Amino acid sequence: MLKPFSDRVSGLQPSAIREILKFTSDPEVISFAAGNPAPEAFPTDVIAKLSADIFREEPINALQYSITEGYPKLREWLRDDLTKKGLFHDGDQIVITSGAQQAIETTAKILCNEGDVIICEDPAFVGSLNAFRSYGVKLAGVPMDDDGMMTDKLEETLKANPTTKFIYTIPNFQNPTGKTTTLQRRKEILALAEKYGVYVLEDNPYGALRFEGEDVPSIKELDTKGIVLYCGTFSKTLAPGLRVGYLLGDSEIVAKAVVGLQTSTVHTNIWAQMLAYRFLTTVDFDEHLERLRGIYRHKCKLMLDGLKAELPEFISFTQPQGGLFIWATLPERFNMNEFCKGAVQKKVAVVPGNAFTADENAVSHSFRLNYSTPTDEQIEKGVKILGEAAKTLLV
Amino acid sequence: MLKPFSDRVSGLQPSAIREILKFTSDPEVISFAAGNPAPEAFPTDVIAKLSADIFREEPINALQYSITEGYPKLREWLRDDLTKKGLFHDGDQIVITSGAQQAIETTAKILCNEGDVIICEDPAFVGSLNAFRSYGVKLAGVPMDDDGMMTDKLEETLKANPTTKFIYTIPNFQNPTGKTTTLQRRKEILALAEKYGVYVLEDNPYGALRFEGEDVPSIKELDTKGIVLYCGTFSKTLAPGLRVGYLLGDSEIVAKAVVGLQTSTVHTNIWAQMLAYRFLTTVDFDEHLERLRGIYRHKCKLMLDGLKAELPEFISFTQPQGGLFIWATLPERFNMNEFCKGAVQKKVAVVPGNAFTADENAVSHSFRLNYSTPTDEQIEKGVKILGEAAKTLLV
Repeated sequence: MLKPFSDRVSGLQPSAIREILKFTSDPEVISFAAGNPAPEAFPTDVIAKLSADIFREEPINALQYSITEGYPKLREWLRDDLTKKGLFHDGDQIVITSGAQQAIETTAKILCNEGDVIICEDPAFVGSLNAFRSYGVKLAGVPMDDDGMMTDKLEETLKANPTTKFIYTIPNFQNPTGKTTTLQRRKEILALAEKYGVYVLEDNPYGALRFEGEDVPSIKELDTKGIVLYCGTFSKTLAPGLRVGYLLGDSEIVAKAVVGLQTSTVHTNIWAQMLAYRFLTTVDFDEHLERLRGIYRHKCKLMLDGLKAELPEFISFTQPQGGLFIWATLPERFNMNEFCKGAVQKKVAVVPGNAFTADENAVSHSFRLNYSTPTDEQIEKGVKILGEAAKTLLV
Repeated sequence: MLKPFSDRVSGLQPSAIREILKFTSDPEVISFAAGNPAPEAFPTDVIAKLSADIFREEPINALQYSITEGYPKLREWLRDDLTKKGLFHDGDQIVITSGAQQAIETTAKILCNEGDVIICEDPAFVGSLNAFRSYGVKLAGVPMDDDGMMTDKLEETLKANPTTKFIYTIPNFQNPTGKTTTLQRRKEILALAEKYGVYVLEDNPYGALRFEGEDVPSIKELDTKGIVLYCGTFSKTLAPGLRVGYLLGDSEIVAKAVVGLQTSTVHTNIWAQMLAYRFLTTVDFDEHLERLRGIYRHKCKLMLDGLKAELPEFISFTQPQGGLFIWATLPERFNMNEFCKGAVQKKVAVVPGNAFTADENAVSHSFRLNYSTPTDEQIEKGVKILGEAAKTLLV
């Protein structure tokens, strides 16, 4: 009798990762499928203390309605920090969001009509792709090489899609590939955005988690025209359960994002914003980040060493310099989905690469491995099982 | 150079209430314009203790990523509670949202195409109206009398708008009018929704705050066809800064809402969900609500008595039996906006009624008064000033 769902969501499916994660509720399954920060990275004692301070000193502020723009002190801290880093330009503004995911979703909501195009790396973060799909946007994927999005293909894609609204990119330790876009490529992406009159949405959840090599300037830092929107988050540097992220960009766009957010969550949980602010101004944040980098450097190396030792040489994998993910690729003669299914039967879960393709029906030969969530023992054991699975299944 | 905002948000304006609230940053202005719970209603000591318990007993659970559906224990508690109240039916499901506002916004997102119609009370809660507008939905307002939405007009509106997706209503102590829809009218609304094949979105933020009269069964309770979606919140019964609400309804619809929420906030701040659950299962919640009702009963009476004593008889106002708001109406010969401007110059802020009309350009002769946020002294003083303003301005 009743009418169906809106066109924009009728085809929207739960993230394929969730389907994999169902297997991981089996406690015997070692999961390389999640994207959770290492639990040992959470500064639980400090957070407990700061939370108690909040309720002792200003309980009403932590419980009453607050403003959509976000906790003023946190926004000021971010403004100062992003100014120091060269990301905050004249005419910019910041709004706090409930995770970077909400910043990404809101950007699509305020900029894109149904049928408009968003250009993304292919593969790309499925959470963002689904946010874009949820507004009836057409996704145009651009293949990546080791230097990031291939900018010759990007220009072709821009030419072919005149209704493109923005280019979406995770330039640092991309999810799912772990790849970092080179400075040259960042400059080219920005130049092409300028040339074709589109925005860039730069998503940088992992930037602070570089454990090897040198930082590369962000696209936002290079932007002189105010066409780069930038989102960040405290999910990987503090704790994801807090759901605190932000959108930085041209003040007119951020003002429209504020109006959009006012109609959805009204504001981000204010206790969490106050907690983030107190954390940033109480602890030595750089020292805290250095500790996290140590954790991830160690876990990543452990997994990479294991993969090198256990996997057949014909399986290639990326060498991330930060972030949470490694991307492994099978030769085309093998069926990646069959391999992932076989692996989970042997009690190791990875995410099949087609979870991340712009075209949901595209064939992928890759899969994503996460090293931040499992323990050292799980990494060592799981990689061995993967090696055995490869020997049995990939013949 | 760059393309403009999406059609769905290009006309979207910040809530008119915010414009009024700017005046209220002047500490001399007494604000009857907000909709904040009384700060003395917050059980701050209990919350501080429960938060400390969470960080002592299960800090990682409170900080790590969680599932989009919401904290399982809180969902179970709600399921039991709503079953007891006759609201949870077979085939129903619950998802936790970041405030009821997000439940409302998500419902519009998943059900409505641009150009579809949502029927609402006129006047109605501006936050919901703006959420609907942000999806390019057409609003069709139905006038109210003292019994709620006028159902003869509702049927006319349903007939005239075949692309209607749902009827939106706050049946208890409506925002902005403070009116409660009678049982007869609730039955008629439901019967018309069935007849015309549309959903009902029943928003019940204030239902637990009835301080006079008898509870009226909710529309969801009367629903035998699974066409009523119901949203609730802990904003008024616990604390709004937590941003914890929920959507209850047919499991297929809630499943689609979960997919939608996965692409926006991923999940609601998990500490806040755990805190709400611990609060509900630690304290005597009924006793807590009784305390809140006492606070609001007192404040409402104080304001009503003052209005009766101070305002000229030609200004009529509603007599709410719960909730946070009183709705005052001037005779048509006066200009309501001029009166509100005059009042704020005399240092009392109220919200002009046209903030709440389905048609933003409609003329209103009413204004909204809030009694939950001001102190007793502010209520007494503010009402006196309003009376003086009426004597000067309404001649």
